[in-house]
Amino acid sequence: MLTVYSNPKREDWKKLCERPAVNQDGLNDFISELFKAVSRDGDSAVYAYSKKYDAASSKNFRLSAEKIQALADSVAPELKTAMQRAKDNISTFHEAQKLAQLNVEVEKGVNCWTKQVAIDKVAIYIPGGSAPLFSTVLMLALPAKIAGVQEINLFTPLNKEGSIHPAIAYAALLCGVENVFTIGGAQAIAAASIGTQQIPKCDKIFGPGNQYVTAAKRFAQNLGSAIDMPAGPSEVLVWADEDANPAFIAADLLSQAEHGADSQCVLLCNSQKTVDLVQQELLRQVQLLPRKEIALAALKNCFAVVFSDDDAALLQTDFSNYYAPEHLIIQANNADDLAIKVRNAGSVFIGEYSPESVGDYASGTNHTLPTAGFAKAYSGVNLASFSKQITFQKLSKKGLENLASTVVCMAENEGLQAHANAVKIRL
Amino acid sequence: MLTVYSNPKREDWKKLCERPAVNQDGLNDFISELFKAVSRDGDSAVYAYSKKYDAASSKNFRLSAEKIQALADSVAPELKTAMQRAKDNISTFHEAQKLAQLNVEVEKGVNCWTKQVAIDKVAIYIPGGSAPLFSTVLMLALPAKIAGVQEINLFTPLNKEGSIHPAIAYAALLCGVENVFTIGGAQAIAAASIGTQQIPKCDKIFGPGNQYVTAAKRFAQNLGSAIDMPAGPSEVLVWADEDANPAFIAADLLSQAEHGADSQCVLLCNSQKTVDLVQQELLRQVQLLPRKEIALAALKNCFAVVFSDDDAALLQTDFSNYYAPEHLIIQANNADDLAIKVRNAGSVFIGEYSPESVGDYASGTNHTLPTAGFAKAYSGVNLASFSKQITFQKLSKKGLENLASTVVCMAENEGLQAHANAVKIRL
Repeated sequence: MLTVYSNPKREDWKKLCERPAVNQDGLNDFISELFKAVSRDGDSAVYAYSKKYDAASSKNFRLSAEKIQALADSVAPELKTAMQRAKDNISTFHEAQKLAQLNVEVEKGVNCWTKQVAIDKVAIYIPGGSAPLFSTVLMLALPAKIAGVQEINLFTPLNKEGSIHPAIAYAALLCGVENVFTIGGAQAIAAASIGTQQIPKCDKIFGPGNQYVTAAKRFAQNLGSAIDMPAGPSEVLVWADEDANPAFIAADLLSQAEHGADSQCVLLCNSQKTVDLVQQELLRQVQLLPRKEIALAALKNCFAVVFSDDDAALLQTDFSNYYAPEHLIIQANNADDLAIKVRNAGSVFIGEYSPESVGDYASGTNHTLPTAGFAKAYSGVNLASFSKQITFQKLSKKGLENLASTVVCMAENEGLQAHANAVKIRL
Repeated sequence: MLTVYSNPKREDWKKLCERPAVNQDGLNDFISELFKAVSRDGDSAVYAYSKKYDAASSKNFRLSAEKIQALADSVAPELKTAMQRAKDNISTFHEAQKLAQLNVEVEKGVNCWTKQVAIDKVAIYIPGGSAPLFSTVLMLALPAKIAGVQEINLFTPLNKEGSIHPAIAYAALLCGVENVFTIGGAQAIAAASIGTQQIPKCDKIFGPGNQYVTAAKRFAQNLGSAIDMPAGPSEVLVWADEDANPAFIAADLLSQAEHGADSQCVLLCNSQKTVDLVQQELLRQVQLLPRKEIALAALKNCFAVVFSDDDAALLQTDFSNYYAPEHLIIQANNADDLAIKVRNAGSVFIGEYSPESVGDYASGTNHTLPTAGFAKAYSGVNLASFSKQITFQKLSKKGLENLASTVVCMAENEGLQAHANAVKIRL
């Protein structure tokens, strides 16, 4: 099922690792028009777009506390217990990311420090569609709360029953999110970016979405709203050795493949035999999946790379870092050693008992991660994503005297006399 | 000289705080064409654009080590000493930002951790023009080095003598930057984003620039390159009380105003009398500046806000946070208390001996900061800007057993059976 590349040369890696280009050119006019309309007409434009494109729409965007509670009450106890456990673990790991205030006397009388200050207002977008992504509510709202965000605004479209999935309502309640707006699509992003009568203008916009949502987030970013990161189809690279269990590998590849037909799955291995066994397992396991058709479509674009030459170990490391996968699963005898060599990845799963699913839901790490090779420069969502790091400095008179000649000399050499004057006039 | 707004109502703040819109629409076609050309023709396109738009051009982009050394040797000893002192302080403050590896046993058998890994290749852009911004080389290259970036590529255009300013060469040498490419403008950004025969494709692009460079960075970001932050004209807000020294305030406002005609300067005060005295000082001091014409042009767009009503203290705090200045200077008897209330700012300068110039050059904090209100969601450049935070997890068999029911329940409720299977198959 997987196309296999044996010992591909370095010069061929670029082509091999290219992600499918999402052409958004056709979208830009649509998105630009939409932002113009929301800017001009506010809520009524948002409503008009919702009426046209969503499964259901309402002129009143906010879901009342009573309605949220009623929906949440209908969630099965087992799921509530599971979500509570996930909440505990996600909270534990993100709480641990809090930074102590940094305070440095850089030189005598020159004190500098940094302070993490939460972003005031954030938007969290949760798509509608086949899978109700209540786990993403936890992954975004919990770090926001821990960071101290004052106002978390959750956006999610109405389903065709004119409601939202009860588990999303329960997740909002569990995370202390009070503002739930039942609008979706690019119009929700535009409203959060611009602000309307009902929707607060948000400083930063988080969350996954389809190509319209992605294009709208990009447009909002160009206008000055911050966004979590650029988005692309989800992906996994499983890095396995000859002793790895083929059934586990196949299960991990399929858990990625079932996300969507555009999912990216790569198997990196030092053994053709293991790859063959994985192929058999894929064939067997995929038959049993409710989302079999999606998974089969995705597998068509997936591939295996086998390095079996002398320098296979080095080449595997380099290939994995070159691909820069969103999720990297390492199933190998020396998994710990290999993990140390990882330079580019969103999140790494080490050893045979660490499937990607644990990170997707409940190990505590965040599941909002950089795709499409962005892991070369971007981190996944973490506590810092919800704060700014502001720097402060305070100099004593003595401190300024000590530093004066340095600052004056540099300012004058940059041709900025007023910068030098601001020091001189004080002394 | 400054327009004065007395006790402006909250509903008028939005208009008051709007930054001049930089219309980049006209640029987009130019930039899009340029990226296409560089993509297609590589170095020859870069050269063609340099020949057309820059003061000088060369087909060989890299500045040799000998040439860098020769230029550096010509720098005056005082400036070398000053730059070394600045280097020491910037290094001290950014070294202190290193994070310990976070390691959490989230629950029994579920270990999660994060690791800061440096970005492999970064581009640092240093504009040409009237002021040789060698200080920006220090502000970007030093944190990059401390973070562990493997390859720092510095881009700066040739001047009309076909060379670069000696202080820029010295700064590169001082920071250990070996790759200096003498190309500038949007074509340098395109080359760094795409990669050409001579120019390595860079994972993240840092540095200031004119509207072409800014538009090119935005374009590169839309294509998938990371950039430091969106850019706008530089700005300062001086927050002063009735006891602040008007001459110091005027000097600080002028040090911002001399940057460019589009610089933004705001004086926030509780005393009309202080504002009047500042106006007199501005008139006096501006006459003495070599960049007087630029400063005078900038002052036309600058303004003072006076809150003198009962709730002046609260209103000043709220106004400063609403404006979200790049640089915030607090000159007041209770400056320390006011600093604690800062929620939105790039960098804060506390007390009468902390002019902005110290942070621009040598106190140790970074001078690459968010403008145009972006301080509401963005940090200035800091050590983390040069790294990714990768998460890792390793579960024992027992750990997975403990977490299995949680993950399986959540996955099944999201309709993702393969995610559940990846857990079940292991147990």
